[in-house]
Amino acid sequence: MELHVKKNASSSQAHQNRARMLISCPDGPGIVAAVSHFLHQHGANIVQSDQYSMDPKGGMFFMRIEFDLADLEQRLPELEKQFADVAGKFRMDWKMNNVSRKQRLAIFVSKEDHCLVELLWQWQAGDLDAEIAMVVSNHPDMKEYVESFGIPYHHIPVTADTKKEAEQRQLEVVGDDIDVIILARYMQIISPFFIEHYRNRIINIHHSFLPAFVGGKPYAQAYDRGVKIIGATAHYVTEVLDGGPIIEQDVQRVSHRDDVSELKRIGRTIERVVLARAVKWHIEDRILVHDNKTVVFNG
Amino acid sequence: MELHVKKNASSSQAHQNRARMLISCPDGPGIVAAVSHFLHQHGANIVQSDQYSMDPKGGMFFMRIEFDLADLEQRLPELEKQFADVAGKFRMDWKMNNVSRKQRLAIFVSKEDHCLVELLWQWQAGDLDAEIAMVVSNHPDMKEYVESFGIPYHHIPVTADTKKEAEQRQLEVVGDDIDVIILARYMQIISPFFIEHYRNRIINIHHSFLPAFVGGKPYAQAYDRGVKIIGATAHYVTEVLDGGPIIEQDVQRVSHRDDVSELKRIGRTIERVVLARAVKWHIEDRILVHDNKTVVFNG
Amino acid sequence: MELHVKKNASSSQAHQNRARMLISCPDGPGIVAAVSHFLHQHGANIVQSDQYSMDPKGGMFFMRIEFDLADLEQRLPELEKQFADVAGKFRMDWKMNNVSRKQRLAIFVSKEDHCLVELLWQWQAGDLDAEIAMVVSNHPDMKEYVESFGIPYHHIPVTADTKKEAEQRQLEVVGDDIDVIILARYMQIISPFFIEHYRNRIINIHHSFLPAFVGGKPYAQAYDRGVKIIGATAHYVTEVLDGGPIIEQDVQRVSHRDDVSELKRIGRTIERVVLARAVKWHIEDRILVHDNKTVVFNG
Amino acid sequence: MELHVKKNASSSQAHQNRARMLISCPDGPGIVAAVSHFLHQHGANIVQSDQYSMDPKGGMFFMRIEFDLADLEQRLPELEKQFADVAGKFRMDWKMNNVSRKQRLAIFVSKEDHCLVELLWQWQAGDLDAEIAMVVSNHPDMKEYVESFGIPYHHIPVTADTKKEAEQRQLEVVGDDIDVIILARYMQIISPFFIEHYRNRIINIHHSFLPAFVGGKPYAQAYDRGVKIIGATAHYVTEVLDGGPIIEQDVQRVSHRDDVSELKRIGRTIERVVLARAVKWHIEDRILVHDNKTVVFNG
Repeated sequence: MELHVKKNASSSQAHQNRARMLISCPDGPGIVAAVSHFLHQHGANIVQSDQYSMDPKGGMFFMRIEFDLADLEQRLPELEKQFADVAGKFRMDWKMNNVSRKQRLAIFVSKEDHCLVELLWQWQAGDLDAEIAMVVSNHPDMKEYVESFGIPYHHIPVTADTKKEAEQRQLEVVGDDIDVIILARYMQIISPFFIEHYRNRIINIHHSFLPAFVGGKPYAQAYDRGVKIIGATAHYVTEVLDGGPIIEQDVQRVSHRDDVSELKRIGRTIERVVLARAVKWHIEDRILVHDNKTVVFNG
Repeated sequence: MELHVKKNASSSQAHQNRARMLISCPDGPGIVAAVSHFLHQHGANIVQSDQYSMDPKGGMFFMRIEFDLADLEQRLPELEKQFADVAGKFRMDWKMNNVSRKQRLAIFVSKEDHCLVELLWQWQAGDLDAEIAMVVSNHPDMKEYVESFGIPYHHIPVTADTKKEAEQRQLEVVGDDIDVIILARYMQIISPFFIEHYRNRIINIHHSFLPAFVGGKPYAQAYDRGVKIIGATAHYVTEVLDGGPIIEQDVQRVSHRDDVSELKRIGRTIERVVLARAVKWHIEDRILVHDNKTVVFNG
Repeated sequence: MELHVKKNASSSQAHQNRARMLISCPDGPGIVAAVSHFLHQHGANIVQSDQYSMDPKGGMFFMRIEFDLADLEQRLPELEKQFADVAGKFRMDWKMNNVSRKQRLAIFVSKEDHCLVELLWQWQAGDLDAEIAMVVSNHPDMKEYVESFGIPYHHIPVTADTKKEAEQRQLEVVGDDIDVIILARYMQIISPFFIEHYRNRIINIHHSFLPAFVGGKPYAQAYDRGVKIIGATAHYVTEVLDGGPIIEQDVQRVSHRDDVSELKRIGRTIERVVLARAVKWHIEDRILVHDNKTVVFNG
Repeated sequence: MELHVKKNASSSQAHQNRARMLISCPDGPGIVAAVSHFLHQHGANIVQSDQYSMDPKGGMFFMRIEFDLADLEQRLPELEKQFADVAGKFRMDWKMNNVSRKQRLAIFVSKEDHCLVELLWQWQAGDLDAEIAMVVSNHPDMKEYVESFGIPYHHIPVTADTKKEAEQRQLEVVGDDIDVIILARYMQIISPFFIEHYRNRIINIHHSFLPAFVGGKPYAQAYDRGVKIIGATAHYVTEVLDGGPIIEQDVQRVSHRDDVSELKRIGRTIERVVLARAVKWHIEDRILVHDNKTVVFNG
């Protein structure tokens, strides 16, 4: 049963010869010239380029380039091989992605469904140009709903006793062919072992304006403190609880009239909007991580 | 020398027979009926009324009423006396203010002038309907500027050794005839003794989105954490550092490109807007404090 | 097939003895006293009250009251009957609603599904406390999806030739027992005849920040004008195209990089959030209409 | 009398060897490579670069580059001369500015002072890194205030009869050595003759969210329409009233309680914030104009 038909044949088709490149390296003279010269020499046409230098004198330099190149799919491996020379000279961390290859997502969810519903709706509307490879949950509740989209659903229960086995099972079903794991209000702590395996590839949505209200029950904390604005934060997961690099935040005004359940209701919309933006930026290769912070080229 | 002429003869004139009433009490049946009956009986006409009940079954009830009454000035003392009966019955905390009596402000400032400049500009433009009775500073820098508005400037230096005497001197110059003290980026810790004297009448502007980044250097803290939105918070001062009841907050989006000095620059505009709103609400009797939180009738 | 189970047994249960009252009348002394006295006399307890006077000297006065009354369902008819005396004295337009009676919605939709999906999701999550009595569409596309929620779907095609018959058919299926009709991106002009039948009960979402970009293709207009912020507007439908009383608006920042299709994508989220807020306020009896404007007691 | 001392010796000093370059041209392969190669060849180090292509296949291409070059002041003329070859090849509109040369501003003002006060405060605080060469006004009111900053004030009265002569006089005092004219709530229509002389160098602040409420009394128009959000718009002045390229907009939520004078009060803060941002971006060479729209590299 597939009630939901993906309407949008996808923008990927339109960009079958487009690639994206992300570069981080120590800043110094000649980087932009070297990269743009290299691409021009190989017949590539730069269609978008963003740069940021923390400090021209020895700080880090970050770059994102979109370029078009005829016969990209065949030529990308060779291009990557040749670029290694340029990269070595400037001590670059870098990658090139073929835009037409859809990134593969795994969504983890518990019982709250709003973030999952948002991602599925955006995906089905063609706004989230990726492949949702699977949904993993410690509860069976959304199985039928998820499968109605033709997406595999893995119910992996987690208890205090079975946490280790559960995580092992998650590793198996997710595997190594997933570009990003999305914790769409997945209410389990992720172990360092699992995090290490998917470093800077696990996005969590935290239901507060971090660093305020770390941990559980942030809306109750916000109510108790009497804040006039609440928020949500999408961040990469690290070993420090709610302490990883922040990707995106947004907020909404509230008042003394809003009790905890009203804060939750208002917050749900912030959460799903913020998470969806972060996921979109990740799969469009707009995010670089450095020193527990993100550079986001979303301009 | 008075360069600056207050243009607006002030809206106070327009409201010479208007009063405001603030009430807090345990909720129960008949409060609104009793108050409105009392006012109607005495010939007063309610022009605005706001209410909020935390819980109709025994929670706190808060009310703000604006009413017009002929010959208000002469009749207010008698009205207050008679209202005591109603108030006693419902165990009310309450006050009535004559709107045409301007509230008296004391502004405390150190070296950063943006919040002071904003308040003076809004006051001079007629947007802040109050009397600025004095500016108190631990530095002499803004003396000439403040005095050009015809406002007294008290330079009271504060050092680690003289803190106690300085505060004693502040108490003397501020006195008991001040409605609210505004810490317009005043960079000294206020002692519990001073706070007690002006309970719920000292407004501070903190340059972060509280409770994130309590204490000194919040912009540096915000930069280090890599937040995507910064904010400012106006709150009443209590014995807990940056922990008092929040009156108002606002925020602005920032990016990885904004270094600490840019965050400060962006923050200055948030700070002055937020502080000015909080002061305006205070002098319009829109704020009730309960249990370290505020009820703000600003709708 | 009902995939979607309404999780929330609904907050209506919690308020089985709660009523809401909306009043509009020319302002004058004693209104609040008369109303609160009347309610108190009948044993009702006011739990929330909002008022707004355009001008205490002869302007319009608006009031919304929530009150609790034991055995409300049995006593409401009698209460209404007796209140007519008070109402007559002050020339009030007024109504009382039993909060526990769910309002009945009809949603009209064409091919764009995002607003419908949002309303259904909020409803199914228990955030929209109403009964969705039917979905009406000039297209068959969403029939299966809507019916999966157990909601009747009426496909009524509209062509230039059949417009009149189609509207007649709509009137029949909607009937007189619907509290509000929601045009959730329904792309047909509504005739004056139909509007008259449901005066101030048809809510439309227009995909621009009105009054900018009236009519078709507002995102293309916004792109051509080079605005830096786009918005959406929920309003009651009148005979003037996109000219009815505005209920709610919201906006989002955009940049020169956003082409028309990107503006549409960003706009979809604004549209659904704005429409959902407007519908929520309508079914909570928070909106009064006067002189082509709304008074919204949402504070 | 100079009450106000510019505290900040200015960031210009810090950037004495920094230049900025703005380029517009038809897009095509090799532009970025050619420009970055040229700069690298001449020993310049790119510290910031932004690009935007409307359409890689023949649309317009826009670029902003900041670069450091030793002995910039001496070498800039030669660099410009040599760059003409590159520019010619790609049919570029372009300019290079020495960042350490402060741009010269002329501010036009009538009776409302809030935008002027804001610009002077930001300038005096070191946040507006420019030279305010003069203030021109059709009224004498702010002469003493402006001159207290050491800034020349030209009072040039304008009446229906003397408009032409007045504008001639304005041309003389402004002259050809001004980088940008700021209409800081200057309430006179500018003639096409004057506009032509300073094409894309006159910034106006309009007190509405354009294109809504063109022309006079926008706050009264906004009140009549019952909008729930008001705004302000900074734009370059063209021959079409309030129709020039939009640089920046911002908004604030309002409610039915806000009458016209309250809308004006709220609007004043939006106006000064929006205008100050637009001026800052202009003097930092962040704005390119094309086809009555702006490309703003403010990321």
